[in-house]
Amino acid sequence: MGYYPASLTGLIENLSKLPGIGFKTAERLAMHILKMPYNEASYFSDSIMEVKKKVGFCSECFSLSDNEICSICADPLRHDSTLCITEQPADMIVIEKAGAFKGLYHILGGALSPIDGITPSDIKIKELVDRINKNKITEVIIATNTNAEGESTADYIANILKSKDVKLSRIASGIPVGGELKYIDQITLKKAMDARYAIE
Amino acid sequence: MGYYPASLTGLIENLSKLPGIGFKTAERLAMHILKMPYNEASYFSDSIMEVKKKVGFCSECFSLSDNEICSICADPLRHDSTLCITEQPADMIVIEKAGAFKGLYHILGGALSPIDGITPSDIKIKELVDRINKNKITEVIIATNTNAEGESTADYIANILKSKDVKLSRIASGIPVGGELKYIDQITLKKAMDARYAIE
Repeated sequence: MGYYPASLTGLIENLSKLPGIGFKTAERLAMHILKMPYNEASYFSDSIMEVKKKVGFCSECFSLSDNEICSICADPLRHDSTLCITEQPADMIVIEKAGAFKGLYHILGGALSPIDGITPSDIKIKELVDRINKNKITEVIIATNTNAEGESTADYIANILKSKDVKLSRIASGIPVGGELKYIDQITLKKAMDARYAIE
Repeated sequence: MGYYPASLTGLIENLSKLPGIGFKTAERLAMHILKMPYNEASYFSDSIMEVKKKVGFCSECFSLSDNEICSICADPLRHDSTLCITEQPADMIVIEKAGAFKGLYHILGGALSPIDGITPSDIKIKELVDRINKNKITEVIIATNTNAEGESTADYIANILKSKDVKLSRIASGIPVGGELKYIDQITLKKAMDARYAIE
């Protein structure tokens, strides 16, 4: 490490802490940053702190937001009677990118996992129930992951909400589009068979 | 891009400008930075500007340095009668890492390339000659790249320095250690054959 000036060593150290960035890549990136125009580097440097200072959680849906209310919750064109529940903000973004949903979201911030000590009070379930009680929600789609934690979280939420007057659904499992059957695990295949639909 | 808060979009844009970092990787890195402790992010952000503000060129050898004179030129244990000439600071660092050289360096800052308009006055050749005139340099190793530009730069420098009382050499070409002959190009193979050495 002593081959570089101290400031460059510092930058290389910071870059190599990022996931998937090894020491060699960090060296290359640091050299690139060194050659950047000053104002470009300054914008980069500032953008790191902007994110740390500004990004918080939407007080309605708990997705990432620079403001008290996120742009989706604040959008009058979204259908405010439908909620899609996801574990993480990243899950919400994937659904948004697919353009598959026009309602509002509710981000739990995790999934139930007794082994990791994550109980219903650690994720935004109480806030979900409050939201449904306060607003005219007619449909709730549970889009937690399809692993053990996601499924048990979905079951838990379904159980809590079954007394409410809302249409409850779970995002479908099946063969991914473009997938090959020989690479699909047995449980997915069984679910896909069970959920088969008639061809008209 | 509208899926993220504006500040996060800014960071993702900046990260995806880095070489080898695509949009998806930038998203992942930005999410990681978002979750970093504040002081760690602050150190990262600062280290970018530290590099831009502090790193300059050593006034002796023109390698990267936080100070007027770099740590190698300032080191009394280095053999100050031997110079190794490289094109870029990164080349010098590779030689340093190999621990293959205990003298001082001279970084040209490029190689002669008439097609790109790079002439002897664009790289630190005058400074090299001045350095040799002023100091007691007894040996000069030319370690420019072995491509066309590097070779012609080596020839040019050798031509200029042949009147001086210094031992001149060029870093050896040959088969890389661990290399397989079947993957080696013909010119390298010819050079390696010509430079064969006797086994005692």
